[in-house]
Amino acid sequence: MSDDVLAQLRAELGDRVDTDAAVLQAARADKSGHASPGPPRAVVHAASVADVQATLRIAHRTGTPVVTRGAGTGLAGGANAGPGELALSVRAMDRILEIRPDDLLAVVEPGIVNADLNAQLAEHGLWWAPDPASREISTVGGNIATGAGGLLCAKYGVVRDAVLGIDLVLADGRLLRLGHRSVKGVTGLDLTALVIGSEGTLGVVVGATLKLRRLVPGEVRTIVAMFSDVHAAATAAAAVTASGVQPAIMELMDAPSLAAVHALLGMDRPAPGAAQLTIQTDGPAAAAEADAIAAVLRENGGAVRVAADPAEGERLLAVRRALHPAMESLGTSLIEDVSVPRSALPAMYDEIARIERERGIRIPTVAHAGDGNLHPNFVFDGPDVPDEIWDAADELFRSALRLGGTLTGEHGVGVLKRRWLADELGDDQWELQRRIKAVFDPTGILNPGKVFAH
Amino acid sequence: MSDDVLAQLRAELGDRVDTDAAVLQAARADKSGHASPGPPRAVVHAASVADVQATLRIAHRTGTPVVTRGAGTGLAGGANAGPGELALSVRAMDRILEIRPDDLLAVVEPGIVNADLNAQLAEHGLWWAPDPASREISTVGGNIATGAGGLLCAKYGVVRDAVLGIDLVLADGRLLRLGHRSVKGVTGLDLTALVIGSEGTLGVVVGATLKLRRLVPGEVRTIVAMFSDVHAAATAAAAVTASGVQPAIMELMDAPSLAAVHALLGMDRPAPGAAQLTIQTDGPAAAAEADAIAAVLRENGGAVRVAADPAEGERLLAVRRALHPAMESLGTSLIEDVSVPRSALPAMYDEIARIERERGIRIPTVAHAGDGNLHPNFVFDGPDVPDEIWDAADELFRSALRLGGTLTGEHGVGVLKRRWLADELGDDQWELQRRIKAVFDPTGILNPGKVFAH
Repeated sequence: MSDDVLAQLRAELGDRVDTDAAVLQAARADKSGHASPGPPRAVVHAASVADVQATLRIAHRTGTPVVTRGAGTGLAGGANAGPGELALSVRAMDRILEIRPDDLLAVVEPGIVNADLNAQLAEHGLWWAPDPASREISTVGGNIATGAGGLLCAKYGVVRDAVLGIDLVLADGRLLRLGHRSVKGVTGLDLTALVIGSEGTLGVVVGATLKLRRLVPGEVRTIVAMFSDVHAAATAAAAVTASGVQPAIMELMDAPSLAAVHALLGMDRPAPGAAQLTIQTDGPAAAAEADAIAAVLRENGGAVRVAADPAEGERLLAVRRALHPAMESLGTSLIEDVSVPRSALPAMYDEIARIERERGIRIPTVAHAGDGNLHPNFVFDGPDVPDEIWDAADELFRSALRLGGTLTGEHGVGVLKRRWLADELGDDQWELQRRIKAVFDPTGILNPGKVFAH
Repeated sequence: MSDDVLAQLRAELGDRVDTDAAVLQAARADKSGHASPGPPRAVVHAASVADVQATLRIAHRTGTPVVTRGAGTGLAGGANAGPGELALSVRAMDRILEIRPDDLLAVVEPGIVNADLNAQLAEHGLWWAPDPASREISTVGGNIATGAGGLLCAKYGVVRDAVLGIDLVLADGRLLRLGHRSVKGVTGLDLTALVIGSEGTLGVVVGATLKLRRLVPGEVRTIVAMFSDVHAAATAAAAVTASGVQPAIMELMDAPSLAAVHALLGMDRPAPGAAQLTIQTDGPAAAAEADAIAAVLRENGGAVRVAADPAEGERLLAVRRALHPAMESLGTSLIEDVSVPRSALPAMYDEIARIERERGIRIPTVAHAGDGNLHPNFVFDGPDVPDEIWDAADELFRSALRLGGTLTGEHGVGVLKRRWLADELGDDQWELQRRIKAVFDPTGILNPGKVFAH
């Protein structure tokens, strides 16, 4: 049967069907550290909507599971393809089909890299706001599939706020055009929103109509504030939000994160226990907002520095951007992604400190403090997540849920968080979601074992 | 069987089950002009989530259709209850359960009126951005059920952008808690977004966690510009959007709309054919933005007046706000709601002029020109929409679709637009949406005959 699948694919798609051993190996993994148990049957490099439709028609007919992939930068294992599966890569579908400054929209294929799109848009004075930390390497299709966030979300929104329409190929190869090109549109159920964050379980995103913004006029101010400990920094971040001034970016680094980055970049060692907030304001009121924020930070015990020079601002932000390489320098990381209401940020850091203390482990944790999204890094040796790390992660998730938070703010469920999905949704909602998935994919060939598997 | 339903409801809900003839009559209609063929069996005035659950358990058990109602201000007939049906009113569930300035969220019951909520929020320096023209009389639950828009959408978003979570009672009475309290959250499918705009077909919204904004600081400028005809005004509006300056409000009134309002308010008659744009800017850059917009309007042939005084600004906007009473003074109105990409606004007005000319009818049309949402008013005598009006409306919808637009920008499908739903969605998507509805409501008791009925 499997050989028959490959033969059928090759008959329609020729050398876009790839069984090179290294290519198959690469399709097993994303950037989460997780890999599937073995290589998939093949990788199909789709070059067009018709290629995606042909692949799905054959997969549907033959009951072959399909895992859609973009650039493979996911952090939850959602695009990892395994034995018996087809990896369907839409990475080569990377054209911008339309940029409309007058309608503030762009129509794109899914494989375009976020930063490449934004470079093109900038020439028109436009941008697409979602800015995951991976924006230099992740695709718009992947951003949509995960419902990606980023650093700017509190001020400029998440992916769900920035997509007007999606072209979706269903499990059986039919093409649907969801959504609209107008600012408003409420004809029928909002399937565009349903597909955002659905992680390849409902269909294959083959095109998107994106809602754009004008590039923000005015200056940028960058503020760095050092605090004696992470609780003080988290409290100050919550105070900034409560003060009513809206930063564009507000990032928190705890002591072990900060120390690891300083070591990697050859900077002076920070004071023991010290934690840091890095904040940017933008727009016409950037300077006044920076002053107001600096005052709040000082009232909360911060040692504050404000930079008006954009180059200096970039240097200050580079410390935060070096977090992932710094973690990689420590060992293998399980990067978590809990999100809590902003006022609960200090309490969540307290919970992390408790888990560290009780279990004798370190959990370097950075946060998008402006929106309450934390990335605890569980660092360990070797390729597999040890059981004691999973136990600690389990406790962390439960703490986040108790504080009114959620399992995943922006990375998705994929493989790594599926065992906690029903804990957050409740059994009734979990079952309802599975049934909705079955409406789109009655035979269950789309990304099986991800998100909804127990 | 029906008497048995009422007996069961009365046993659980006592005098919250209402069969007063006037109350039943009122439940037949909304503000669309459409009424169901006859009164429903009863109106249940739910006072709590438990009341809603009890009603649905009984309805589910007995196969009794349920039409959820708020304030009855809808414009598509979506909440009109008819013979054999139960009207479930959540209007009395109007409490604000929580206001959190630190987390920029509020938790409310569905029956609270939009303006009443915003009056309470203003005391905390907060607001909920969705501002349908009906905000003084429509409920938050109704705003969610229709996916309401309003005047501020281009700058401040629609309902979908302003709801974090929904508590939903399913057709069988089970309660689901959808969404999250954090800014970010991608755990599972985004059912919150799916419920927004679902017009009572998926479940009963019994609570909502709303995403709030800080009240916008700074001044407001109001600009009124008069043009020789509607095409010139629409072209100027598109030019404002294309210029990159973002108004908070940009409203267009064509000649018959403007003439009707002037007559109603006892103002001087406008010049024949003259059309008007009314624009507001807000925030720290309001004055500079108003100057930039005024320049664009003058370049496009407008006679422009800019008001800095808030009271004068309100007087200028009052002309636009008097549109609905002005239409009522002309006869019965079928208020349509097409939405097109902003650059297509002049072409859509040309289409309306063509339909008027070819059919010998007048279609006074106002537009939320900032977001491309038009409200053509088909005025006629008597209670029923004449066939020739439906034919003209049909042609109008097809024009909007051809221009890349949508059937309904903010009013919903309800009864009045269901016959065109499949035209916009395509048969495959229409069938998929029906199947999703069936997952939530397998026996089809929730608002049957609305949205998805042929």
